[in-house]
Amino acid sequence: MNKEALKQLLDKVKKGSTDVEEAVEKLVDLPYKELGFAKIDNHREIRTGYPEVIFGQGKTPEQVHDIVKFLLSKDGNILATRVTPEMFDVVRKLSGDAEYHETARCITIRQNAPVLPDTHIAVVTAGTTDLPVAEEAAVTAEIFDNRVNRFFDVGVAGVHRLFNSLDDIRKARVVVVIAGMEGALPSVVGGLVDKPVIAVPTSSGYGANFGGLSALLGMLTSCASGVSVVNIDNGFGAGYQAGMINKL
Amino acid sequence: MNKEALKQLLDKVKKGSTDVEEAVEKLVDLPYKELGFAKIDNHREIRTGYPEVIFGQGKTPEQVHDIVKFLLSKDGNILATRVTPEMFDVVRKLSGDAEYHETARCITIRQNAPVLPDTHIAVVTAGTTDLPVAEEAAVTAEIFDNRVNRFFDVGVAGVHRLFNSLDDIRKARVVVVIAGMEGALPSVVGGLVDKPVIAVPTSSGYGANFGGLSALLGMLTSCASGVSVVNIDNGFGAGYQAGMINKL
Amino acid sequence: MNKEALKQLLDKVKKGSTDVEEAVEKLVDLPYKELGFAKIDNHREIRTGYPEVIFGQGKTPEQVHDIVKFLLSKDGNILATRVTPEMFDVVRKLSGDAEYHETARCITIRQNAPVLPDTHIAVVTAGTTDLPVAEEAAVTAEIFDNRVNRFFDVGVAGVHRLFNSLDDIRKARVVVVIAGMEGALPSVVGGLVDKPVIAVPTSSGYGANFGGLSALLGMLTSCASGVSVVNIDNGFGAGYQAGMINKL
Amino acid sequence: MNKEALKQLLDKVKKGSTDVEEAVEKLVDLPYKELGFAKIDNHREIRTGYPEVIFGQGKTPEQVHDIVKFLLSKDGNILATRVTPEMFDVVRKLSGDAEYHETARCITIRQNAPVLPDTHIAVVTAGTTDLPVAEEAAVTAEIFDNRVNRFFDVGVAGVHRLFNSLDDIRKARVVVVIAGMEGALPSVVGGLVDKPVIAVPTSSGYGANFGGLSALLGMLTSCASGVSVVNIDNGFGAGYQAGMINKL
Amino acid sequence: MNKEALKQLLDKVKKGSTDVEEAVEKLVDLPYKELGFAKIDNHREIRTGYPEVIFGQGKTPEQVHDIVKFLLSKDGNILATRVTPEMFDVVRKLSGDAEYHETARCITIRQNAPVLPDTHIAVVTAGTTDLPVAEEAAVTAEIFDNRVNRFFDVGVAGVHRLFNSLDDIRKARVVVVIAGMEGALPSVVGGLVDKPVIAVPTSSGYGANFGGLSALLGMLTSCASGVSVVNIDNGFGAGYQAGMINKL
Amino acid sequence: MNKEALKQLLDKVKKGSTDVEEAVEKLVDLPYKELGFAKIDNHREIRTGYPEVIFGQGKTPEQVHDIVKFLLSKDGNILATRVTPEMFDVVRKLSGDAEYHETARCITIRQNAPVLPDTHIAVVTAGTTDLPVAEEAAVTAEIFDNRVNRFFDVGVAGVHRLFNSLDDIRKARVVVVIAGMEGALPSVVGGLVDKPVIAVPTSSGYGANFGGLSALLGMLTSCASGVSVVNIDNGFGAGYQAGMINKL
Amino acid sequence: MNKEALKQLLDKVKKGSTDVEEAVEKLVDLPYKELGFAKIDNHREIRTGYPEVIFGQGKTPEQVHDIVKFLLSKDGNILATRVTPEMFDVVRKLSGDAEYHETARCITIRQNAPVLPDTHIAVVTAGTTDLPVAEEAAVTAEIFDNRVNRFFDVGVAGVHRLFNSLDDIRKARVVVVIAGMEGALPSVVGGLVDKPVIAVPTSSGYGANFGGLSALLGMLTSCASGVSVVNIDNGFGAGYQAGMINKL
Amino acid sequence: MNKEALKQLLDKVKKGSTDVEEAVEKLVDLPYKELGFAKIDNHREIRTGYPEVIFGQGKTPEQVHDIVKFLLSKDGNILATRVTPEMFDVVRKLSGDAEYHETARCITIRQNAPVLPDTHIAVVTAGTTDLPVAEEAAVTAEIFDNRVNRFFDVGVAGVHRLFNSLDDIRKARVVVVIAGMEGALPSVVGGLVDKPVIAVPTSSGYGANFGGLSALLGMLTSCASGVSVVNIDNGFGAGYQAGMINKL
Repeated sequence: MNKEALKQLLDKVKKGSTDVEEAVEKLVDLPYKELGFAKIDNHREIRTGYPEVIFGQGKTPEQVHDIVKFLLSKDGNILATRVTPEMFDVVRKLSGDAEYHETARCITIRQNAPVLPDTHIAVVTAGTTDLPVAEEAAVTAEIFDNRVNRFFDVGVAGVHRLFNSLDDIRKARVVVVIAGMEGALPSVVGGLVDKPVIAVPTSSGYGANFGGLSALLGMLTSCASGVSVVNIDNGFGAGYQAGMINKL
Repeated sequence: MNKEALKQLLDKVKKGSTDVEEAVEKLVDLPYKELGFAKIDNHREIRTGYPEVIFGQGKTPEQVHDIVKFLLSKDGNILATRVTPEMFDVVRKLSGDAEYHETARCITIRQNAPVLPDTHIAVVTAGTTDLPVAEEAAVTAEIFDNRVNRFFDVGVAGVHRLFNSLDDIRKARVVVVIAGMEGALPSVVGGLVDKPVIAVPTSSGYGANFGGLSALLGMLTSCASGVSVVNIDNGFGAGYQAGMINKL
Repeated sequence: MNKEALKQLLDKVKKGSTDVEEAVEKLVDLPYKELGFAKIDNHREIRTGYPEVIFGQGKTPEQVHDIVKFLLSKDGNILATRVTPEMFDVVRKLSGDAEYHETARCITIRQNAPVLPDTHIAVVTAGTTDLPVAEEAAVTAEIFDNRVNRFFDVGVAGVHRLFNSLDDIRKARVVVVIAGMEGALPSVVGGLVDKPVIAVPTSSGYGANFGGLSALLGMLTSCASGVSVVNIDNGFGAGYQAGMINKL
Repeated sequence: MNKEALKQLLDKVKKGSTDVEEAVEKLVDLPYKELGFAKIDNHREIRTGYPEVIFGQGKTPEQVHDIVKFLLSKDGNILATRVTPEMFDVVRKLSGDAEYHETARCITIRQNAPVLPDTHIAVVTAGTTDLPVAEEAAVTAEIFDNRVNRFFDVGVAGVHRLFNSLDDIRKARVVVVIAGMEGALPSVVGGLVDKPVIAVPTSSGYGANFGGLSALLGMLTSCASGVSVVNIDNGFGAGYQAGMINKL
Repeated sequence: MNKEALKQLLDKVKKGSTDVEEAVEKLVDLPYKELGFAKIDNHREIRTGYPEVIFGQGKTPEQVHDIVKFLLSKDGNILATRVTPEMFDVVRKLSGDAEYHETARCITIRQNAPVLPDTHIAVVTAGTTDLPVAEEAAVTAEIFDNRVNRFFDVGVAGVHRLFNSLDDIRKARVVVVIAGMEGALPSVVGGLVDKPVIAVPTSSGYGANFGGLSALLGMLTSCASGVSVVNIDNGFGAGYQAGMINKL
Repeated sequence: MNKEALKQLLDKVKKGSTDVEEAVEKLVDLPYKELGFAKIDNHREIRTGYPEVIFGQGKTPEQVHDIVKFLLSKDGNILATRVTPEMFDVVRKLSGDAEYHETARCITIRQNAPVLPDTHIAVVTAGTTDLPVAEEAAVTAEIFDNRVNRFFDVGVAGVHRLFNSLDDIRKARVVVVIAGMEGALPSVVGGLVDKPVIAVPTSSGYGANFGGLSALLGMLTSCASGVSVVNIDNGFGAGYQAGMINKL
Repeated sequence: MNKEALKQLLDKVKKGSTDVEEAVEKLVDLPYKELGFAKIDNHREIRTGYPEVIFGQGKTPEQVHDIVKFLLSKDGNILATRVTPEMFDVVRKLSGDAEYHETARCITIRQNAPVLPDTHIAVVTAGTTDLPVAEEAAVTAEIFDNRVNRFFDVGVAGVHRLFNSLDDIRKARVVVVIAGMEGALPSVVGGLVDKPVIAVPTSSGYGANFGGLSALLGMLTSCASGVSVVNIDNGFGAGYQAGMINKL
Repeated sequence: MNKEALKQLLDKVKKGSTDVEEAVEKLVDLPYKELGFAKIDNHREIRTGYPEVIFGQGKTPEQVHDIVKFLLSKDGNILATRVTPEMFDVVRKLSGDAEYHETARCITIRQNAPVLPDTHIAVVTAGTTDLPVAEEAAVTAEIFDNRVNRFFDVGVAGVHRLFNSLDDIRKARVVVVIAGMEGALPSVVGGLVDKPVIAVPTSSGYGANFGGLSALLGMLTSCASGVSVVNIDNGFGAGYQAGMINKL
């Protein structure tokens, strides 16, 4: 509500065409509306395709059940990440549309037909052990109404595999690159592709990998421009931001 | 050169309309062209506005002089980051267009008139000590032909300062958020703005800041979606990727 | 006072040239009591409401049983933290007053009616995964005879949730703020509330969270004044100190 | 402005006793007022004794000069921390009341007569190298209108020094304990004093001290209850929170 | 295909002795051939004795089964590292030649008779807990067609054990030294043996070993020349590089 | 064999009173004898009371069985640390003298009557969770023929407990102090006792304890003189060195 | 003994039913002296040869001057560590007996003739860069009235240098071993010498040495028994404890 | 001296053809000779081309002068690393053959004509800031009598630069790869070149580079086989081991 709209409301109060009580109800929410919180909320309600997201890790199947049940009443698409098979068992009873993405460890429930932009996102991984994180990114972007092209197992130790896919990777509007170990792939891709690269370090590896630290530091200090980084194993975060960029 | 173009070239060789020597010259460069390296290079030459970048840190003024002299022959815009006043002294003698951005510790030389998109980038900082990094990001984005709006000193310890600027920040297409200490600002902005946020941790602080580690870890584990992170103090990297996204 | 001086004093007592009472006053300064050890102990015995605390982690149910049995003979309130359901099974047989706080992983046994001050403590959390730590803080403060108001799930990624509760949070005398991930909430609260803030980092999160390190460093380097920090997941420590401050 | 006050304003608009324009002006500021930002600001203006604080580190003497000049126009007391002698040279020309605390590396300008509570703060240090941090804490608390008692060089390696001061330390309402090296003093004090202890690790030491890390981790894992911790070398933060608690 | 060969091909196209289609097929693969990727691949196919390697950790027995089945069709030797007994159960059904190395946690399938160089590799360990890593190194080098001499349990705490074997260790062409704890053995061996030393830190130990960090840092900062280091517990990497050096 | 003895041997060879073969046999062992390795071995064989030590962690009960069986043939006392109940089950069948120390997680077999020096070792712990490490230290020292006095649960949070035992602790010749959390106890003891203190950090604790790191760094940076430190949880190492010092 | 019991005892003394001497024995346990504080002080005053120690780092020459001046009045020997030449300039004016140990960065003032035990301490270093730390240890032990034998530059990369000195090192009662880089020397010495070894990691080195961390972790995880460790570069601490042990 | 040679010597003593004194002199050195120490030394003396190495860092020009003067008397080649221009000023006065390698920060003095093997070493760097480390590696290998081919500034951010040099890099017998930042180059090279790769992380970079840690961890966790790693900035170590391997 901008200053002009506020003036119009008060004019109506003055004229009696709007009730004081009615005006109070409108104005009492003003702070948050004006700060934009309601905008975001309205935004989410109006534009279908935005998922409601549940972070499953550390929750019980019962808790996931209750949250999904509540969200189903709101008509949006639903995404649950880091879920277990037990969680899917309770969710499938709530909705026949529930889909279980085993590798991604995700559940999606699509309640709105997708409205897809023409552009797409490339999801690129270094090795096969990075697959769960890659699928989490891809599933997140897809339920968020994006097209995704997957390019798996094209790590730098055999860089010719990357080149076989390079022309196709370049067609994407934004590229998510996922790698564990030394995390070198985003640097190489970032030097070859003229698009924003979102790098995801994974905890796959052992020893001096230190739970993903080696890949994380490698990606942060990448010598290629145009690379930014999300948390270790955070496929969701990369898929979410890639979706945002793809739909700009 | 795709398969069809290759066939046409060989047809011309067969017909004699193209010389064998001429065809050899074209084909001998094929690997890199086909891999897209030349594309990138052509790309850079054709689309004016892309800066050539020099990382000044660890270089001597003489080295910077030589590189700038070479780049001036190539007609593109030039950006040098992490420069000293001594470096600017030698560069200004090479070009009257050289501009010194003191806070940003950058030199720019614009050789092509900017072609600016309508959209713009917001550069937001938590405190005044984050200014050099913020200016590096802004100057980078600007020489890269982007409009930049600056919102400085709106850190979370006095979050009302942020709200005063929130409507304007939201108008940007992509937001760069820069913060030291605990690095909380990107989380708050990411929760309020429905645009990609690129977070830059800075090394400003002391003690448990550990050279920017506290802000870095904080931003990587941000509870807000849509936030990705670049290296500590890497204003250039954030400005570069923000420019990429802004011009998609 | 050396042995000789002591002998002289006693000689004077014997001779009657020094009063017994006078000598008592002089000698009473000597023992541990004067160093305050006994004072603390008396203090604990006299002022009901102070809990005796058992740290359950690493103990067997039998050990907890034995300690509780001993403490029950001392008439004070009892608090056991980091307990398992098996521990409660043995404790409930010792006392019908034993109460099990499942989320807080605590057992309390109240043997004295609470004497509550008018002021209260606010316990604020960023997310639902911080609940066990928050409840440990709240239960600790309550068995310690404090009123506690809970404000859960008001993290900075949706900062409007915090504002909905802000007026109420401000009514507290001291605020405990609990957050995992980037640990940004204490900075925001500390900037909005003019009361001491005790921040508790939690180990909830993954990847660059490094077992709570990201939240810990973030809170220690908070740009807000008036914030101090306790150990990762140390709800007990925060509740204990908040109780101390609330009762000053 | 609560709901009732809002209703009364609208009633006046309806009745015409308040102008629409006037009401618009009142309502348009509502968000921030209602969120309490203005409250804080009013608060600071009204209650004298609250210092305006400048963090000198990383600033030029000129910048400090400009900020102090501005703050002098606002009638509050002024505190600048982490200052250099050069900064004091420019500040003393602005105000004859400016005082330089050499050990604390602070400047204070008192523009309001202190209104001191009866209670006081104890500032306790382990060794002489902790003095600058201790004085920063003490000067901060004092300009904030608190009485401070100093107990220096009572570290645990000669624990009898602590006992000599124990009775006096116990008389304080809140205790700031400052230590480097292994940071053991807060644990010992916390076990002997029944008051909130704010622990400040210092970077004094070498080797495995790792810039204060040993003291920091030691204080965070203190086995004594009632101890919370601020950043390494953060005397200001401890003095500020101690002042808050002392004036509750 | 070098420039001359290219010219000859085009001459044939011109003369019509080579079909355009045929020439297209040859030229379309040029990039990778020219970059040498195919060379590597040919290389591997031609020179028997090079193992195909499977990293078993994180794979299911089914996945290992499928990869081994595919590799068996390619006639090379096969090495699977970090395998479980369950994996061997499925692999032995695929090939009667499959051999399970229990301590090394490896499976090998030899499909080509070994062609061994005269020189050999020494594999030296500090303690018995380093055996699995040492055997992984040895088995890797052996399936890679190298002779290996094992010298186990000759750690520096009883350095005479090392001297008993020193003459024999010196006969090797390259020495792999494996140690946990403080990782001192490579320094001592490196000072006594005039051959390249590849050091492997192991995670065996506890406390300040920090998962192999103590041995890793110790080996990297070795005061002996001629020592290089691989990842913690990376017996495979050491055996592989030692084999490379042995066959130069 | 010194130069003179060597000359005498050669004289005998020259004179024929010693055979060449006999001399060869004597000289061929010279290196190790001369370096003293044999001295150590003889030493161990001659002086009974020295235990043979088995580090049980990571071994199978069968391996422990085999080593114990071998050692039993050598007549010395035997110590196995970090053992499981399963290991004791196999060891007790080998020797009726085998004793299981449950808290210490040790097995001892005494085959020689103890010859105890008059002096003794004090083993002091901060809390009850440090007991297993303390008992490992005590059992080690005892099988090594030392008297041990135990002082448990005298941590600094209630420093009066320490003073109750101080006179007795001072009677020891060397003091082992074991503490987790902040590891402050060795500093306090080191300041009160004029004997060498061997500090053992334990991994008991959580959060910023980081697996014993807080206690380790605290002890290394102890402000008390006369304190040295062994690895986290290394009760054996402390007991072994304390025994060495006690028997000097 | 509580106040009442104290009164009863004094009543008995007054009445003569308890002897003065008997009462003295009972009461003498009460004061600080009995806690040993005074004992230590007397101890230091009575037994000459114990140095008073000043840690020079972070102090001004004036502060060192004042402390030395005070200590000179107390007749004990004086040791100042981590001093600068400037400090010696002021100290030599106070006492003609002041001696400057340049490599050790120490000042000593001997005011009492040494009373040396027959046994001695060996101070062993790996390389020449460890000399300052070694000399600090040696000078500390010497002013503390111990004989010291120095064995420098016998690091493990050329282990034969160590063997040349081994027989002499073994004659010491306690061995201080100082090493930087990988810190392997204490493990080797600990395996060859049947005496307590005090290991001192030094910060000499670069890269993965991380300021002495590599040597520190290496020494803490030493596979040799009988090794304990002091802080990085803490020659004083090692010399002090070695002196304690040597004089037991 | 093996058993047979020993027997022959004793036979000569017996026969009188060798003097007892002469034999004593030969045998008295036996321990070290037999352990191979002398072998190494002889080896170094006999095979010219082996450099004597001085690590200049932390030494004074005078110390370097003295060591060089001594080494000049021994006829071998001399290498001094980490030297300053001041050091060269004193060294050039000792020998007209002294050569100063400014970028490498090395001095070499060649006293023996090189005997070069046909094979050579490739030294490859990612960026220009890695040059000092690369030159240290190259100069070390060259004074050690190896041919070196340099390939500078071929980092992965512009991977086509690497491919331009790939055929030539492949011709080397061993490859030293030097990189800072994320340290990805060794992984890419290791995947393309079938030769041993020695990786050198450099400290060039900032922020999350943490003094070379990012490159170090990246190289240790390289997904390419055949890569081993030396200390951060340790060009000498890589050049030394590469020389060893090249001359096998």
